Amino acid sequence: MVTIHTTSGKRGALTVDFPQQEQDLITGQKPSDHCAVVGVISNEQAYGYLVSSLKSLQHRGQESAGIAAYDGSMMKLKKGMGLVSDVFNEKENPISGNVGIGHTRYSTMGTKTLENAGPFVVSSASGYLAISHNGEITNAEQLSEELKKRGATFSTSSDTEVMLMELSKEIAENGVANGMKIAMSKLKGAYSAAFMIDDRLFAIRDPMGIRPLILGKTGNTYVVASESCVMDVLGGETIRDVLPGEVVEITPIGPKRILIASSRVEAHCMFEYVYFARPDSIIDNIEVFETRIKLGRVLADESMVEADVVIPVPDSGRAQALGYSQRSGIVYSEGLIKNRYSGRTFIMPSQVQRTASIKMKLNAIRSVVEGKRIILVDDSIVRGNTMRHIVMLLRKAGATEVHVRIGSPEIIAPCYFGVDMKTKDQFIARGKTNQEITEEIGADSLAYISIDGLVKSIGMPKQNLCLSCLTGEYPVNIPGEKYLYQKDLTNY
Amino acid sequence: MVTIHTTSGKRGALTVDFPQQEQDLITGQKPSDHCAVVGVISNEQAYGYLVSSLKSLQHRGQESAGIAAYDGSMMKLKKGMGLVSDVFNEKENPISGNVGIGHTRYSTMGTKTLENAGPFVVSSASGYLAISHNGEITNAEQLSEELKKRGATFSTSSDTEVMLMELSKEIAENGVANGMKIAMSKLKGAYSAAFMIDDRLFAIRDPMGIRPLILGKTGNTYVVASESCVMDVLGGETIRDVLPGEVVEITPIGPKRILIASSRVEAHCMFEYVYFARPDSIIDNIEVFETRIKLGRVLADESMVEADVVIPVPDSGRAQALGYSQRSGIVYSEGLIKNRYSGRTFIMPSQVQRTASIKMKLNAIRSVVEGKRIILVDDSIVRGNTMRHIVMLLRKAGATEVHVRIGSPEIIAPCYFGVDMKTKDQFIARGKTNQEITEEIGADSLAYISIDGLVKSIGMPKQNLCLSCLTGEYPVNIPGEKYLYQKDLTNY
Amino acid sequence: MVTIHTTSGKRGALTVDFPQQEQDLITGQKPSDHCAVVGVISNEQAYGYLVSSLKSLQHRGQESAGIAAYDGSMMKLKKGMGLVSDVFNEKENPISGNVGIGHTRYSTMGTKTLENAGPFVVSSASGYLAISHNGEITNAEQLSEELKKRGATFSTSSDTEVMLMELSKEIAENGVANGMKIAMSKLKGAYSAAFMIDDRLFAIRDPMGIRPLILGKTGNTYVVASESCVMDVLGGETIRDVLPGEVVEITPIGPKRILIASSRVEAHCMFEYVYFARPDSIIDNIEVFETRIKLGRVLADESMVEADVVIPVPDSGRAQALGYSQRSGIVYSEGLIKNRYSGRTFIMPSQVQRTASIKMKLNAIRSVVEGKRIILVDDSIVRGNTMRHIVMLLRKAGATEVHVRIGSPEIIAPCYFGVDMKTKDQFIARGKTNQEITEEIGADSLAYISIDGLVKSIGMPKQNLCLSCLTGEYPVNIPGEKYLYQKDLTNY
Amino acid sequence: MVTIHTTSGKRGALTVDFPQQEQDLITGQKPSDHCAVVGVISNEQAYGYLVSSLKSLQHRGQESAGIAAYDGSMMKLKKGMGLVSDVFNEKENPISGNVGIGHTRYSTMGTKTLENAGPFVVSSASGYLAISHNGEITNAEQLSEELKKRGATFSTSSDTEVMLMELSKEIAENGVANGMKIAMSKLKGAYSAAFMIDDRLFAIRDPMGIRPLILGKTGNTYVVASESCVMDVLGGETIRDVLPGEVVEITPIGPKRILIASSRVEAHCMFEYVYFARPDSIIDNIEVFETRIKLGRVLADESMVEADVVIPVPDSGRAQALGYSQRSGIVYSEGLIKNRYSGRTFIMPSQVQRTASIKMKLNAIRSVVEGKRIILVDDSIVRGNTMRHIVMLLRKAGATEVHVRIGSPEIIAPCYFGVDMKTKDQFIARGKTNQEITEEIGADSLAYISIDGLVKSIGMPKQNLCLSCLTGEYPVNIPGEKYLYQKDLTNY
Repeated sequence: MVTIHTTSGKRGALTVDFPQQEQDLITGQKPSDHCAVVGVISNEQAYGYLVSSLKSLQHRGQESAGIAAYDGSMMKLKKGMGLVSDVFNEKENPISGNVGIGHTRYSTMGTKTLENAGPFVVSSASGYLAISHNGEITNAEQLSEELKKRGATFSTSSDTEVMLMELSKEIAENGVANGMKIAMSKLKGAYSAAFMIDDRLFAIRDPMGIRPLILGKTGNTYVVASESCVMDVLGGETIRDVLPGEVVEITPIGPKRILIASSRVEAHCMFEYVYFARPDSIIDNIEVFETRIKLGRVLADESMVEADVVIPVPDSGRAQALGYSQRSGIVYSEGLIKNRYSGRTFIMPSQVQRTASIKMKLNAIRSVVEGKRIILVDDSIVRGNTMRHIVMLLRKAGATEVHVRIGSPEIIAPCYFGVDMKTKDQFIARGKTNQEITEEIGADSLAYISIDGLVKSIGMPKQNLCLSCLTGEYPVNIPGEKYLYQKDLTNY
Repeated sequence: MVTIHTTSGKRGALTVDFPQQEQDLITGQKPSDHCAVVGVISNEQAYGYLVSSLKSLQHRGQESAGIAAYDGSMMKLKKGMGLVSDVFNEKENPISGNVGIGHTRYSTMGTKTLENAGPFVVSSASGYLAISHNGEITNAEQLSEELKKRGATFSTSSDTEVMLMELSKEIAENGVANGMKIAMSKLKGAYSAAFMIDDRLFAIRDPMGIRPLILGKTGNTYVVASESCVMDVLGGETIRDVLPGEVVEITPIGPKRILIASSRVEAHCMFEYVYFARPDSIIDNIEVFETRIKLGRVLADESMVEADVVIPVPDSGRAQALGYSQRSGIVYSEGLIKNRYSGRTFIMPSQVQRTASIKMKLNAIRSVVEGKRIILVDDSIVRGNTMRHIVMLLRKAGATEVHVRIGSPEIIAPCYFGVDMKTKDQFIARGKTNQEITEEIGADSLAYISIDGLVKSIGMPKQNLCLSCLTGEYPVNIPGEKYLYQKDLTNY
Repeated sequence: MVTIHTTSGKRGALTVDFPQQEQDLITGQKPSDHCAVVGVISNEQAYGYLVSSLKSLQHRGQESAGIAAYDGSMMKLKKGMGLVSDVFNEKENPISGNVGIGHTRYSTMGTKTLENAGPFVVSSASGYLAISHNGEITNAEQLSEELKKRGATFSTSSDTEVMLMELSKEIAENGVANGMKIAMSKLKGAYSAAFMIDDRLFAIRDPMGIRPLILGKTGNTYVVASESCVMDVLGGETIRDVLPGEVVEITPIGPKRILIASSRVEAHCMFEYVYFARPDSIIDNIEVFETRIKLGRVLADESMVEADVVIPVPDSGRAQALGYSQRSGIVYSEGLIKNRYSGRTFIMPSQVQRTASIKMKLNAIRSVVEGKRIILVDDSIVRGNTMRHIVMLLRKAGATEVHVRIGSPEIIAPCYFGVDMKTKDQFIARGKTNQEITEEIGADSLAYISIDGLVKSIGMPKQNLCLSCLTGEYPVNIPGEKYLYQKDLTNY
Repeated sequence: MVTIHTTSGKRGALTVDFPQQEQDLITGQKPSDHCAVVGVISNEQAYGYLVSSLKSLQHRGQESAGIAAYDGSMMKLKKGMGLVSDVFNEKENPISGNVGIGHTRYSTMGTKTLENAGPFVVSSASGYLAISHNGEITNAEQLSEELKKRGATFSTSSDTEVMLMELSKEIAENGVANGMKIAMSKLKGAYSAAFMIDDRLFAIRDPMGIRPLILGKTGNTYVVASESCVMDVLGGETIRDVLPGEVVEITPIGPKRILIASSRVEAHCMFEYVYFARPDSIIDNIEVFETRIKLGRVLADESMVEADVVIPVPDSGRAQALGYSQRSGIVYSEGLIKNRYSGRTFIMPSQVQRTASIKMKLNAIRSVVEGKRIILVDDSIVRGNTMRHIVMLLRKAGATEVHVRIGSPEIIAPCYFGVDMKTKDQFIARGKTNQEITEEIGADSLAYISIDGLVKSIGMPKQNLCLSCLTGEYPVNIPGEKYLYQKDLTNY
């Protein structure tokens, strides 16, 4: 817990609790990944709103959860490993305050630390600063070196700490609005953030709008959150998306624009529509579930095949499979049962070892599959291991043909903007022909939706989408990667 | 952990670990409820098979998990609160032995104790006895009083302990086969059990076959389990169901019938097909998923209504909704998003209190629902609270009509055979007209499948099914309840 | 937690909580060892008295702690691993009831299980029975075999469970007083116990009075406990010792003798005076601290040596060293510092390995020791390892001579009555001359008090003491050991 | 765990683990208090040495423990609540590195946070900096405001973080030696610290030498620690005390002076000799145990009284009581038994409430006390509550007279240099006559040693001791307090 006094004459009273057991650490890990951010300002206690909001965004990060709140004289912080319901439950004392921010972080398998867990809080010359961040600062290393030369010290390797230090420095030197503007001109990459200066709450979105960020209200309580589903859960309503490059101050009487950075390009992450976002969210005015249905329909248009039944990979492929079934007229059915309690498989006697690990998580329904030609639909393929196992599972259950259809194009390049896909070798589609991939997963046929089909389904101009993991061309200048706007844009 | 030496001259060395914190207890709680049982005999270590099997049956009980195994000289027992993956994971030492049994138990909200957690183990004159039990002994209280009068003492209120004591007594006095036969003639109610006498493994099913129990093998490993999906997960195959009234000894070379009790009636629980069992299981030769599709089709036949879309309550109503859609020709879609991370709701600011608790778990997809006439399908209604909230949720998302269709008949009477429905007041359908229930849940129309439609969908003779929660007539004589076979049957 | 209903028509509702992690088990472990027992009957809640009493007796057992209490309708039990303050603290709900018993158990290094943790509770034909036991039933194995043949089953290897089953059986068949009498005629060995039948509380002491048991009161609350220091801590007063062979019922208006078994010999454990009991306790009317001072004086008389300073091994040798100093006129000083926080030593770089493990726990004060002839006094030597290290420590700190003086005679034989000394090979004094032992511990001289000196210091007739660990002659017939009363006594 | 890469082009990878449960926080708490510091540089792994050293210094702080080590490319940090053996044990992975520092912190009742838990680690322009600190920076607030104005941010309210930031700033701007010198000229108050810059290890002691700090070696391993007992435990030897105002770099071949700050006064804390330090330590060449014996002797000289027995308050008063007994010729005896397992008292039935809480921790031995005139000796009295209870305890056990003798003068003023005595109201001796205090504690007489007697016993020039808690005159200028060197000294 962090307690920070506002009385200007006092140093911040920040208390953090360390657990008894250190954790394994993957050295050099890039800490930024999928996250959820939320901010609340209310005439009631913010805590209940923050916890409810974070639970609604739990799909964006299950590794850690944290809340910082300001109660008029103190800034308090609590964060912990695990689900929101592990860290914030009825056994825990609520954190008081009418203004607060929250954060959840994605669980990268194998690293179980609070590195990059949000929010981050410091005391500074401008008061107490707190930030929750979703995205990835691509020039964090360079900025941290510059800040160190000016006397700064860092306690973590997190790019969020760099963002906070940069904001702290510029705000101290240039005031709130100008300071944020200058800091944003230095920060490259993706960032959607909820930010506090003592009792003031801000929403900040990078000039390309890579990650989502949305404003809403419920009663007299104003909310900023990663996704619109939060507003539904709180029984409230969406106001509008934070615009690319915009800083909004969220005051007790509503949001107020502080600045909007000039940006000549937008680069909304297409993967939010394909996979990340909750199906019931609306991002930049586009409905996620409807988009996924459309992806299935376009996929049927592009790669029709004769078959007896369309089966989704649960739970990720359902909407796309429904769309495919609707367009193709081929009957839709559940055909794979997901065991939600499997946990990590670890002990297997010799003879069951090969089959049981995947069967523990998925099993085919023989009565649906046996003797049938199957169209198996999923949202995406990254490594391909699971897909190979599922195809095998269906064949063992008696499927005569298995045609795999994927509601996104081939992923072939790393993401530097907040998705946990960094290693080029990991992509099954990189440098392989369709036939090679088809053989690798053991399917009778395999089709991905085309990039144009994806863009059409989303319904946004192609130049406004970040497609870099599909094309290898990046909207931000990444050393060693191809830059999309080499000539055209000075700033990006 | 329980360690029991087989050397006959020694007392059992049974060690149990108690946690530091006592748990709340609901006095007089009937401890028997949904459970999973499994037994394994192998030429390899049984532990891996037992853990994998229990994980596959986790849906039958998430409160506690336990394993007992015999390694040639000792009987060991470990049980704990939580999921199988909480109690048995890579941090824990495996329990050695080629023969073993396992158990999971259902989590009744509010009671978090190991009461009735299995397996139970004791040392006796016949050696070391261990049992995992699914079901409910209806005359446990009477039997325990009789056993106490003969000198027995009890450490728990569990009917499983009574069953074990009864088996212990009769086996000691009459030998294994005769002892089991006599014990079974005294035990009334539902019991499907895996039972060990030192290194011998038995499967026991009550004469009415109320709860499922099935035999299978994988390689040279023989398995008894509550459901057939275990055999799929282990990469093996089903041999056959244990018959009503049968005791099978499972030897290293396969199952061998010890006895089969004469029974003039069968009473298979219809709720296993409707709700309990995993969709990919086959119980008493009837496929569960296919049965649920049929329930949806019959439901469409019986209570067709004009509408725009068929939506399931996730995850319980999917198969029935698919069947309804197939028969009715009305398009099927997901329309409700389930938040798998909601945890227990506990803190709600005043104005969101009423709506958020259900919205935390379910949210409607506006693009699917808005302006549509909805057919909402679920497997069953017990109390009706959730259904009322879902209907409200759909209306708020813009549904113009909501027609509720339920894949089982009205539940109006308690279950005494292992389902956690004991209080008559809890049933929304008890003593109400269809119109009253419809109004209570706020739907435009409500239809349950008929009992005959249910029976037809399952495809088993009506007299072989236990329908007592639908009719109030019981196949076992329960004091204060109507007995189905008053005149006809001496034994039952 | 164990909850047992008294309503006769109901089975006991006993719930026990198992922890998530099994514990290592030393097979065949004899579970009986040093323990504390306490029982309370009050017109107030018994819980506070029980917890305070157990804390006062924590020196008799630090492995586990437990309490059972009866509140008029239910028997409840809670036990856990660790100190009394770990299991019963302000975070835990108190256990209600005006009558209750408590237990602590000794921590044998390496076994961390609740085996033999008390109290034990069962429901029986006579009602709910609960027992806390200190001692060791020497014929437990034989009795358990006999009870099994009569239908009993056992859940643990504890002799306390056998004692409880024997009491249960005889009380059910012969009533309370006669049943206890018969049971006591069958139970051999050492037992001081607090016993409950529903709301009735009894104190039971074996006919030889091997372990202590004492009655007291504070206000209107009556107490039975292992030691009199409990009465001091509760602000109350001692009434009297429970007599050898006596059963006392402790009623709300005071203790009442139920029976006293005829016994021709007493055999009070001398080690209670030497080491076990708290110095401020009075056992069988003999003050423990004063006895230890006398041991030191007699030791000085018997084995005077010229020296500069008398140093105790802290904390065990202080009283004896004071007595030695008083009689010898040689100055007394602390000379060894005990580190109470050392914990288990585990990681040691190569060069510090040999010295640090003992130095972590004890360090010599150079200014006291350097250039001095030391008389080092302790209460007893069992294995001798620690003593060898301490002598080395003193020499390294500059002691010119180290004379070891021990306030008890040579221990050469196992204890079968509740002390954790079972293996004959472990005793440094067994089969060795004084010179051999002296060399082994590296001292300049070594003297034990004589058996007669011990008896004189205690001030009790020699035939009333159990000296079997010093003589190898046992007051109870132990197979394979020499029986003290071979001819004289039929019963013992 | 904190992992920091040294490669200059990289930001530090620091990972901290937060526990799941926030802790209560006493707002405005002054975090500096008794602590232990240790630093090790070795050709072996430092971890084992660090853990052993911290365990030896556990008496200086039981709230938290931490270790930072550098393994050639990374700086790692682990800290946790609890004893050293809770945080660093065989279940935890060791922290690799040949150079490292460690810290333990005092447990202030009621605050259980890691606030001020050491070590602190940051990455900076100069590399990775780590510090363990014992003492209290009296101008931390002023320094932190200045640093904030220059762009620094703070994560805690700890004065150790301020000290680290100050060192970081000055070293970055002025190099290691000059930077430290400048930082030390700004830091006021007490600080004995182990400090690392990447793989370089330094010992820093404030110019007055308020807290102890000592150098030693064992084999080729060099050690800096708060007390000399560490060297004994490691089987090594003391080299020398770090001098007041000195900075020593501890290299793999031994300690090397970096600088020594000019200081016109020394102010060694007299309470280290009286109470804090382990009796077997030697501080600034003065033996602690011998000093305490002398305190007892001088006390006897100053305030002799006729009596039958001298009894120490265990464990704090033993040496002083021995000295008193030796000088007075009055027999010494243990007379109070300390219950080491009492834990916090919490539940007390009405009638035992008043007496039991103290009796739970201490009980008088009646045979020693009854009918006797007692001289009760302790090291110090702060609040007086415990002493009042002990006197009462002795009287109830039959003491005819109780004469209290204290081995330190009256404490009447707060400590600002690292002792947890801040509130003036808490001192029983403040503003009271001897007679008033004597009555308050219920003694027959009460005598403290005189300040001159104290100084004589320690044997150091009076002007070299910090006696401010006895006199209210401070060697450092504390706003609102009387400054000892008002005129004489510019710097202090």
